[in-house]
Amino acid sequence: MKITDLAITPIAFADPPLLNATGVHEPLALRTVVQLHVADGVVGLGEGSGELVVLERLARVRPALVGQSVFDTSAIEAIVFAELGNDVPPIQKRSVFSIIEVACLDAQGKLLGLPVVDLLGGAVRQTVTYSGYLFYKWAGHPGQAADEWGEALDPAGLVAQAARMIDLHGFGSLKLKGGVFPPDQEIAAVRALAEAFPGIPLRIDPNGAWSVATSQYVAAELAGVLEYLEDPTLTTPAMAQVAAAASMPLATNMCVVSPETVPEAIRLGAVQIVLSDHHYWGGLRHTRELGALCATFGLGLSMHSNSHLGISLAAMTHVAAATPNLAYACDTHYPWNSGDDVITVPFEFADGALRVPAGPGLGVELDEAKLFRLHRQYVASGRTTRADTAYLRQVDPAYDPSLPRF
Amino acid sequence: MKITDLAITPIAFADPPLLNATGVHEPLALRTVVQLHVADGVVGLGEGSGELVVLERLARVRPALVGQSVFDTSAIEAIVFAELGNDVPPIQKRSVFSIIEVACLDAQGKLLGLPVVDLLGGAVRQTVTYSGYLFYKWAGHPGQAADEWGEALDPAGLVAQAARMIDLHGFGSLKLKGGVFPPDQEIAAVRALAEAFPGIPLRIDPNGAWSVATSQYVAAELAGVLEYLEDPTLTTPAMAQVAAAASMPLATNMCVVSPETVPEAIRLGAVQIVLSDHHYWGGLRHTRELGALCATFGLGLSMHSNSHLGISLAAMTHVAAATPNLAYACDTHYPWNSGDDVITVPFEFADGALRVPAGPGLGVELDEAKLFRLHRQYVASGRTTRADTAYLRQVDPAYDPSLPRF
Repeated sequence: MKITDLAITPIAFADPPLLNATGVHEPLALRTVVQLHVADGVVGLGEGSGELVVLERLARVRPALVGQSVFDTSAIEAIVFAELGNDVPPIQKRSVFSIIEVACLDAQGKLLGLPVVDLLGGAVRQTVTYSGYLFYKWAGHPGQAADEWGEALDPAGLVAQAARMIDLHGFGSLKLKGGVFPPDQEIAAVRALAEAFPGIPLRIDPNGAWSVATSQYVAAELAGVLEYLEDPTLTTPAMAQVAAAASMPLATNMCVVSPETVPEAIRLGAVQIVLSDHHYWGGLRHTRELGALCATFGLGLSMHSNSHLGISLAAMTHVAAATPNLAYACDTHYPWNSGDDVITVPFEFADGALRVPAGPGLGVELDEAKLFRLHRQYVASGRTTRADTAYLRQVDPAYDPSLPRF
Repeated sequence: MKITDLAITPIAFADPPLLNATGVHEPLALRTVVQLHVADGVVGLGEGSGELVVLERLARVRPALVGQSVFDTSAIEAIVFAELGNDVPPIQKRSVFSIIEVACLDAQGKLLGLPVVDLLGGAVRQTVTYSGYLFYKWAGHPGQAADEWGEALDPAGLVAQAARMIDLHGFGSLKLKGGVFPPDQEIAAVRALAEAFPGIPLRIDPNGAWSVATSQYVAAELAGVLEYLEDPTLTTPAMAQVAAAASMPLATNMCVVSPETVPEAIRLGAVQIVLSDHHYWGGLRHTRELGALCATFGLGLSMHSNSHLGISLAAMTHVAAATPNLAYACDTHYPWNSGDDVITVPFEFADGALRVPAGPGLGVELDEAKLFRLHRQYVASGRTTRADTAYLRQVDPAYDPSLPRF
């Protein structure tokens, strides 16, 4: 079943002012939606980064996809790698390929009348559990009214945000994006969450904002409180120094990001949990392979998220359902989208979980009107790249995103 | 699409007197064929070990398979593991599951109208290359006439065997099963092969029959002659000692045999090439995962073989075609079967390679009459387990298979 075309549509959707170690989310998050056309009118959907460089690379590989069998994803991977050439690092090639692979699997499922999870060995769980993703945030974007979430700049604000998140979606674990305020403030926030929601698993992720010494300090302060500590510091050797003393597992999506980065992390015992992300690891099949690798080395497996819409969430849910050792609740930014999506029926969490879509394929349908609206929004914005630091500097011109910040 | 039954048929087929470190192949090799029945009359085929313990375990898991979806191979794996309980080691559970997984994939392909390779990401090569597998052997089984291959107990006999093997099947690389004669004789045999077939890649596999010192001696003697040296000695630490000094890569299917055995081998740098075998690693999907693991750690990937028939050869060919880094020619015992098989059209090598069967499924059809004949042969033999040592002791009562032999 041959591929006849790949339509590539950049979109922009509303995003609240969520703070992180490098700045703050801009009013619009960028994303790319692809529609992979195959014979008989079947269209496979994919979603990934909206960075201009990704759009350019998708456009570059598009002609070579035409005529390939939609079942030959390994051959397509080789084609993508060859077309992008040696100037593009493998991890960036995988980001491009992952969008296409998901679209191929969606098309395969539609052609075969099967859900994507069945192309990956079938579901080992019928529902996939997600974690409530908490952010320090401003009440609203500068110059705009407060959004529905309001301000969260201290422990009380985060506890209120968590209560709303749990009330709306039923999440049974919580993750705080840290690296924003001095560590003692973030330690206090985690403790406040632990007190407000006794027994709920808690994670904090400062995106490498802390030095080794600061990371060790936070790990000691939060012993017995955290489910895991995610990327406290940058680089694999530094993570290993923190891991050597920490009582809780260290998790990462920053030092283990590709096959190339695995051996050093294992050799040094730098991390105990890898956060998979099919967008980075080259699609759903490679994510299952990452799961097998983690099982082989006794590493835990969780899942990372960037801002995303429902096509990605469907793909995340299918692969999580197919991966036996993906035992941790997955991250997702989906609740921050304020209902913006490109699919006809947006996902709704029940008890913090999603049922695996029944398919066929990913089991989601593109809403062309929504896609058009978000594409027009992208065009009107004039934006082509994410710039959290520049946006924060509009408010605080002296903001220095150099890491470690603390 | 639900599984309705699993038919389990033990068979025995003629095998020449092939010598190895533990003894000699008996006149009959044992094997199991399964027929996995699903709704709509579709039947998936699987093949694996014919040991009685495997038959018993297949029978034990059979009732739990009925009613499962044939697409839920991961769930079926969990069921097989649960049914077999903690008294059965994981590697032996995988041997049982692998037979079922291949049958599930064959049935899936038949239901979907796709070759198995397309369920694994598609073919990255249209033909799979195999290696000519040479054995020291007697002219015929004791008390019987010489077989078509005749005697091979010295370099000249092996060169003649290789010439026939290449003439019949076109193999472009050769592997010698060693560990039979004192190492200097086997070194001489490898050198004779190198002289008779200049430039052809050569391997020798003594199945751990050598001490570390002997292995190091052989490695030094055959520097520049061998493509790789397979399992010269037993245990991963001992392999690491040999690897540290050897000029050629070390390969293994004896010290890296399961996920559990991978970390030590990588930590010690014990091997450079892993011989996959879907029968041991739990099926075709896990074999692809092993490929990904090897790529991640810069290990080469080849393929191991036990005595097998055409269903296994089809499965080996599909997974080899789907695994990008399976770059070495695969092992196969198939040319030693004297035409015995259970499929309607036995495979024929062209230039030492097989085209990937077009499918659907594995692309082979069971010949019920042949299956019945080989099953009657199994029943009549009264045999239930492989016993190379006991068979050799009928000729040489003092034979001691303790390793290392040399």
